[in-house]
Amino acid sequence: MTELSPRIRFGGDYNPEQWPREVWPEDVRLMRAAGVTSVTVAVFAWAQLEPSPGRYEFGWLDDVLDLLHARGIRVILATGTASPPAWLAHLYPESLPVSFEGVRLAFGSRQQFSPSSSAYRKHALALVESIAARYGQHPAVEAWHVGNEYGNHVARSYDPESETAFRDWLRRRYGTVDELNRAWGTAFWSQTYGSFDEVAVPSAAPMIRSPTQVLDFDRFSSDALLSLYLAEAEILRAHTPHLPLTTNFMGFFKDVDYWAWAPHVDLVSDDLYPDPADARSHIVSAATRDLMRSLGGGRPWLLMEQATSAVNWRPPNVPLADGRHRLNSLQAVARGADGILHFQWRQSAAGAEKFHSAMLPHAGEGTRVHRGVRALGAELAELGDLVGAPVEASVAVCLDWDSWRAIEQDGTPASVDYMDSVLRFYEGFLRRCVAVDFIHPEADSARYDIVVAPVAHVLSDAALQALSQVPARWGTLVVTYLSGVLDADLHIRLGGYLGGHGPLRDALGVRVEEFAPAPQQDFSFSVTGSLSGEADFWQELLLVDDAEVVARFAGGFAIGSPAITRKSDGGEAWYVATRPSTDLMDRLVNLWLDGAEVPAGFDAPTAEAETVVRGRRRFVANHGSTAAEFSVDGRHVALPGHGAMWIDRT
Amino acid sequence: MTELSPRIRFGGDYNPEQWPREVWPEDVRLMRAAGVTSVTVAVFAWAQLEPSPGRYEFGWLDDVLDLLHARGIRVILATGTASPPAWLAHLYPESLPVSFEGVRLAFGSRQQFSPSSSAYRKHALALVESIAARYGQHPAVEAWHVGNEYGNHVARSYDPESETAFRDWLRRRYGTVDELNRAWGTAFWSQTYGSFDEVAVPSAAPMIRSPTQVLDFDRFSSDALLSLYLAEAEILRAHTPHLPLTTNFMGFFKDVDYWAWAPHVDLVSDDLYPDPADARSHIVSAATRDLMRSLGGGRPWLLMEQATSAVNWRPPNVPLADGRHRLNSLQAVARGADGILHFQWRQSAAGAEKFHSAMLPHAGEGTRVHRGVRALGAELAELGDLVGAPVEASVAVCLDWDSWRAIEQDGTPASVDYMDSVLRFYEGFLRRCVAVDFIHPEADSARYDIVVAPVAHVLSDAALQALSQVPARWGTLVVTYLSGVLDADLHIRLGGYLGGHGPLRDALGVRVEEFAPAPQQDFSFSVTGSLSGEADFWQELLLVDDAEVVARFAGGFAIGSPAITRKSDGGEAWYVATRPSTDLMDRLVNLWLDGAEVPAGFDAPTAEAETVVRGRRRFVANHGSTAAEFSVDGRHVALPGHGAMWIDRT
Amino acid sequence: MTELSPRIRFGGDYNPEQWPREVWPEDVRLMRAAGVTSVTVAVFAWAQLEPSPGRYEFGWLDDVLDLLHARGIRVILATGTASPPAWLAHLYPESLPVSFEGVRLAFGSRQQFSPSSSAYRKHALALVESIAARYGQHPAVEAWHVGNEYGNHVARSYDPESETAFRDWLRRRYGTVDELNRAWGTAFWSQTYGSFDEVAVPSAAPMIRSPTQVLDFDRFSSDALLSLYLAEAEILRAHTPHLPLTTNFMGFFKDVDYWAWAPHVDLVSDDLYPDPADARSHIVSAATRDLMRSLGGGRPWLLMEQATSAVNWRPPNVPLADGRHRLNSLQAVARGADGILHFQWRQSAAGAEKFHSAMLPHAGEGTRVHRGVRALGAELAELGDLVGAPVEASVAVCLDWDSWRAIEQDGTPASVDYMDSVLRFYEGFLRRCVAVDFIHPEADSARYDIVVAPVAHVLSDAALQALSQVPARWGTLVVTYLSGVLDADLHIRLGGYLGGHGPLRDALGVRVEEFAPAPQQDFSFSVTGSLSGEADFWQELLLVDDAEVVARFAGGFAIGSPAITRKSDGGEAWYVATRPSTDLMDRLVNLWLDGAEVPAGFDAPTAEAETVVRGRRRFVANHGSTAAEFSVDGRHVALPGHGAMWIDRT
Repeated sequence: MTELSPRIRFGGDYNPEQWPREVWPEDVRLMRAAGVTSVTVAVFAWAQLEPSPGRYEFGWLDDVLDLLHARGIRVILATGTASPPAWLAHLYPESLPVSFEGVRLAFGSRQQFSPSSSAYRKHALALVESIAARYGQHPAVEAWHVGNEYGNHVARSYDPESETAFRDWLRRRYGTVDELNRAWGTAFWSQTYGSFDEVAVPSAAPMIRSPTQVLDFDRFSSDALLSLYLAEAEILRAHTPHLPLTTNFMGFFKDVDYWAWAPHVDLVSDDLYPDPADARSHIVSAATRDLMRSLGGGRPWLLMEQATSAVNWRPPNVPLADGRHRLNSLQAVARGADGILHFQWRQSAAGAEKFHSAMLPHAGEGTRVHRGVRALGAELAELGDLVGAPVEASVAVCLDWDSWRAIEQDGTPASVDYMDSVLRFYEGFLRRCVAVDFIHPEADSARYDIVVAPVAHVLSDAALQALSQVPARWGTLVVTYLSGVLDADLHIRLGGYLGGHGPLRDALGVRVEEFAPAPQQDFSFSVTGSLSGEADFWQELLLVDDAEVVARFAGGFAIGSPAITRKSDGGEAWYVATRPSTDLMDRLVNLWLDGAEVPAGFDAPTAEAETVVRGRRRFVANHGSTAAEFSVDGRHVALPGHGAMWIDRT
Repeated sequence: MTELSPRIRFGGDYNPEQWPREVWPEDVRLMRAAGVTSVTVAVFAWAQLEPSPGRYEFGWLDDVLDLLHARGIRVILATGTASPPAWLAHLYPESLPVSFEGVRLAFGSRQQFSPSSSAYRKHALALVESIAARYGQHPAVEAWHVGNEYGNHVARSYDPESETAFRDWLRRRYGTVDELNRAWGTAFWSQTYGSFDEVAVPSAAPMIRSPTQVLDFDRFSSDALLSLYLAEAEILRAHTPHLPLTTNFMGFFKDVDYWAWAPHVDLVSDDLYPDPADARSHIVSAATRDLMRSLGGGRPWLLMEQATSAVNWRPPNVPLADGRHRLNSLQAVARGADGILHFQWRQSAAGAEKFHSAMLPHAGEGTRVHRGVRALGAELAELGDLVGAPVEASVAVCLDWDSWRAIEQDGTPASVDYMDSVLRFYEGFLRRCVAVDFIHPEADSARYDIVVAPVAHVLSDAALQALSQVPARWGTLVVTYLSGVLDADLHIRLGGYLGGHGPLRDALGVRVEEFAPAPQQDFSFSVTGSLSGEADFWQELLLVDDAEVVARFAGGFAIGSPAITRKSDGGEAWYVATRPSTDLMDRLVNLWLDGAEVPAGFDAPTAEAETVVRGRRRFVANHGSTAAEFSVDGRHVALPGHGAMWIDRT
Repeated sequence: MTELSPRIRFGGDYNPEQWPREVWPEDVRLMRAAGVTSVTVAVFAWAQLEPSPGRYEFGWLDDVLDLLHARGIRVILATGTASPPAWLAHLYPESLPVSFEGVRLAFGSRQQFSPSSSAYRKHALALVESIAARYGQHPAVEAWHVGNEYGNHVARSYDPESETAFRDWLRRRYGTVDELNRAWGTAFWSQTYGSFDEVAVPSAAPMIRSPTQVLDFDRFSSDALLSLYLAEAEILRAHTPHLPLTTNFMGFFKDVDYWAWAPHVDLVSDDLYPDPADARSHIVSAATRDLMRSLGGGRPWLLMEQATSAVNWRPPNVPLADGRHRLNSLQAVARGADGILHFQWRQSAAGAEKFHSAMLPHAGEGTRVHRGVRALGAELAELGDLVGAPVEASVAVCLDWDSWRAIEQDGTPASVDYMDSVLRFYEGFLRRCVAVDFIHPEADSARYDIVVAPVAHVLSDAALQALSQVPARWGTLVVTYLSGVLDADLHIRLGGYLGGHGPLRDALGVRVEEFAPAPQQDFSFSVTGSLSGEADFWQELLLVDDAEVVARFAGGFAIGSPAITRKSDGGEAWYVATRPSTDLMDRLVNLWLDGAEVPAGFDAPTAEAETVVRGRRRFVANHGSTAAEFSVDGRHVALPGHGAMWIDRT
């Protein structure tokens, strides 16, 4: 990856094709005044660049890039393939995606292509080839923005080309149809296939569909999008080995497995739109920033899109109150971002997103929003020392797309929201302001003192092995309910649900005999023992082979059964068979931090304050709407509602 | 339009084809006993009139009309085209409508045709030609009932014929594809079209569809139905220039733009079924009657359909308690109706509407419902003096289908119920018993003292001009939140949301910088100033150029910003940037009435009482279920629950 | 039907094809240890038995049957046709079902065939022929399990073959299209058909579809499935006249009319999965057991499937607390079951139902669930005296699929849950522990002292006659709201809603003039008179010709109108025009029991206790979760939560 500049990038999507040429010089003048360093150009410009098949019109884009370059604004140039033009849908209707229910979706919004469409792929790559050849050496271009939000709106298509591609993917994965039959467990319900040609995409069916077929279609669909990305990347790298590649991720996005994608981007970037109406949105935001940093292996990343105020697709679309745009931006920087960009520079006058806020609103310069943009640009210009600086974490939380997809399928013990469970454990550490990385459960976790595996429903042999090693190397391992139930083919690991006869059972000293989801949403119960508190949602019947029972269920189906256990042998291995309340979670986190000697950011848990260290600065923020005071690093800090500040630690 | 008779029409749909011939004489005898003057015949009789293509069977209808004529009952003869017969669906399956998701809807209910079907049009017009030729001179026929409830159930079809017709409509509207591209803002999201042939109907798509494409499809679909009406009308007028034409509207019906239709009917008529389970149904009813009068430019109109008790399509289908059928009927007369008809004369024994009440119930003559029908017939016979009498209004409320459709699209700042907002302002005047007309925002409003434009989201240049003139001619103008945001192509009017740089900004003295919908449904706040009170749902950031701030927001995102402003320059120009509570609305209405010197019907606002003057009579009603007393025109009036009376004003 | 053995059957579905051969001997060993007597084999084994068209592989099944036979375990052999293999879908995509919205459902779950598919029928019957020939004389086989859960998931298909078959069914039912037109009431809404070829399946349509068309399609669809069953049965009976046939019903299953099916099975069997999270599930369970007994004319029946703990398709899938599996099983025996089987023997390791509990859980023998299975096997072995013993009932409750389907169509007076209304009356008797049979309303009810017809919406002439005879023979007849409204063609019986001019009016002495569903769900009201209490949901206006008014409505629309009437002339004929509260229902039931001199099981109504007599034993159960004490047959009984016991009555 190319070095980032020593300036925090600041800017946004710039779509000059929506405006008359006379507006462009004013755009650049106002960008300069706002401290804009970089813009992303041509994300949705395919129709302007190739008005009919093979007829390219680059003149206008030449002018835009020259104009930006002349004023020192750098360009992250998009390949423009995210939304194919009308002629593609018209000439190749088979390129349009088909829904689960068999509906061929229409042109008229965006991203209307089947990931497996050969017509789309052919025309998209031809466009990329032309753009790379023409602009690869343009001095304004500092990076490539490949596609856009892969998988957004259409992550899967059930069209015939997808069916063919799915069969090919299965042939590569399984080699023989017998192996597919074994993996999918087709002996159940008379589903045995005689050949790959008999396999169909898992569209609407009479009842619960084959779990492994559905998961494989999820995996295939993510891979089909990745293969589009890689095909573009290959062309770009051939033309411009010097330019970094990125594509904007979308935070915790179930449809695309970012662990598989991250190795193929030079710069991780993310689009994030926290909901101002959600009092907890800063929690998901913090976790998302941490995920982006983790995907890049700790390298700085880029906030590719955010809003300056309201969005348009989440009615009610509440605006960001004073301070919150800055707070969101600085939180990203504090958690590893080296650039703060937006959708978009100038608010559209027409189209589906005209009510989405922008850096330059409909009402112009003299507005609350634009004043905030200018102030943020000026502030970011002072933070150049953070560029490239790392964020150090000693706690790792496992995140795994297979577990996410598997536990949210039909036919599971309960309707489990995987990310909700993961984030409840993440949030326990966030309330103590302890930095957290996300890792894949198979990853080497040797650098972390604490490894948490929440709802690690699917664990491969390698993952079982990796987790089991944590206490052996004197670390703290925390495993929760519903973990180790399935192997990578979604077969039950027989013999008790914590990994069956695998090594996790020995590491934890317990096995699970039976699940007991709560019968109603408001059903809660106590757990009592050396640690006591409230819990809800989930119970299990445990078989304890070799562990200390920290707490037992004091009510519900599993009354009397162990609820929380600890095995101390080397490090510590905890099993949590229920969903702790906030209070109980805080006490558990304290035990884990104390046991692993990991220091917390504040003395006590806090729901609205945040602090994190990056480079030589400590970031302190108040996510509440009223003023608050804190003590941090021995200093007294007072912040207004939605306030944030940096403390120099050198 | 032909003169109405000096008798209030009374009757209903008469469907003798559902009954054996021996029932018909009893029908006519009972009609006479009930005071029936008019019946609508053959609305759903196509299959009986043309059992197979081109084979007409009119004998039974000859007999029905002769029988009715012999007993002095007049006939509003239907063209019978609302529900084509089975053979049309069988021979021309392409005539069946296609849903948004691509489902070809089946025969087996009613009105199963694509508005753009050529097969439907051809066969429907042939039937009309035959009916007009045969019955145009029949002495029983007093008017034509064209089609039925155009747009009910199928207001849009996404079939190939509709696509072709939509393209033709667009060619006529825009002339060139460049102009279409400009109007639709296709530079956004790579949507530029190379030719009209690339344009598709806006069926299910991956994400928010093109706003202007969607609105144009709404407009086209209403026009496609209108073209069917006009084609029938042309035939009928050629045969019977002496007979008035009507088609039954359906009140506030979003799918069909009645401002465009009304000039083409000789007699406005309406179908209305107030929900007895809804304590506020009389409010929507009052507004609907006022709309019908307004559509006809103040001329009397016809209540074509209502129920005598329960309907069958709104479970639970609550019956009308004693007095409510009469109350509904007289409210219509008081607000301009010259006829009270029903669906239907004799309650069906079979079919989808057999549980819909009728003038003659299943249990026969000796029933609560039929006794009420006879009493109403007798009462209406005494009100002949009202025939042709006008209702005078000095307040106008703007109603606009473009605004309605645009603000309820996806991708807007909030989920806005347009009619709810319009009716909240209407209701403020209704509670003072001030007569209100509805007008199109482009209409000449010179005859009104007060003009209210609620949620006038789309305002054309002409509408901006028309509204701006109100204070200039010493009238009172009231404009509310979300007004003047878009032009007729749904482009933002740049520079601030009250019409951008257009004349409305000068008239009101304010502009809008930013929207702030309430974050939750139950979020409310105070406004304070020279006027104070409660409001909810909506806030805006205002830029005040030249107006008095009547109230400011005392909470929420826009705290401190002006909420209600008034500019006094000539007349008064008010801007209301929020949704007032009932109490605040009443105080606002009082200010507006006082300022414009418009007198109220009662001394104080009332939610359940109603009074309105028509001709030489004043109508007074009690919509509550318990007895109440009022003072009106200096007289004391006592009414039972659901009671109503007429006061002679001569 | 072949004699049942003098041992209560115990076992479950056994699917060895899901496991390696080395597991099979362990299965049989553990079955023996658990007291298993019978297993159902090959329910979903088509793909294993016929891996490609016409190539049969029976070797593995030979081995399984021989192994079971060697250890004395008997086999209920499935015909394996419930879920056709992948090659059928691949070679004959037209065999896949089509949904109401026109979606062709995919292979990948189970039971993916149109009931009218000729390809499915041909291949299914060839398989049955082969199985019958090979295994009909195998000594392990004691009965045939035909298909599986007919109608589950796909009870109707809207594919072209179904359309053709529907037309043929209509030709057979009606003979001429004129008769179809009369029955369907096609004079309404221009629906008259010129030929059967114009008739389509009632798929998605613009509005309420023809009621009789929809009901006939329901009837046809149930018949189409029955014809598949009968075709298999014909083959099996030809090969093995000595073996009984069964197919597993699914309790109160609206899609299949079990009155029509029951005469064609030798042994009624049922699948039932009471929801442990539903505190009232034992009520539906009791009724379901009574229905199964009633379907067989009082003969013992077989519980073919139940769960030992949680299921997988009803999130949250709550496990059965200790005692509840036994309680469910013994309740079935007490109400006439001669066998207790389960889905399934060994819990699957893969596939859509791997989280469904089984007799042998994932965690193996040493589990709560498996210990319970063994204990139950031992207990059932002691109850051999109950085999073949009858349960005597003196109360009959009418149950009728036509009424069920008709009242739950669109376009009725209210959203009525038919089974909820039926079970409220059933439950009144259950709370007094009075045994109840279900009967068809046309059935001869001479053996019952009390006949209850709740919501008997559709009554044929024969049913009107049968019910009217009850008081004439000195029985007690109870008829409720919404009864006798329609004839079998769903035409209104004119003249008042209790059967029009038919004999029921005379029997009850009342007629109904008008319906009045409650305007809101929480709307309730009193009824007062010689009996008083609370009621809700429904009111009617009654015309009393010749009956005692027991209670009148004291509120609501029908205030003052009779609510409950009794005519005493011979026996008693009650009409209940509303939905009684629990308390009022108990007082009504007491009156009915007293009047008919039917003894109750307990002294007072009880919601959680149950007792029923079978053979020489009385079953007493406590469905509450805490201990309780009862007095029954003069004995004092103490039971823990979810406890049950047998009292010897000899």
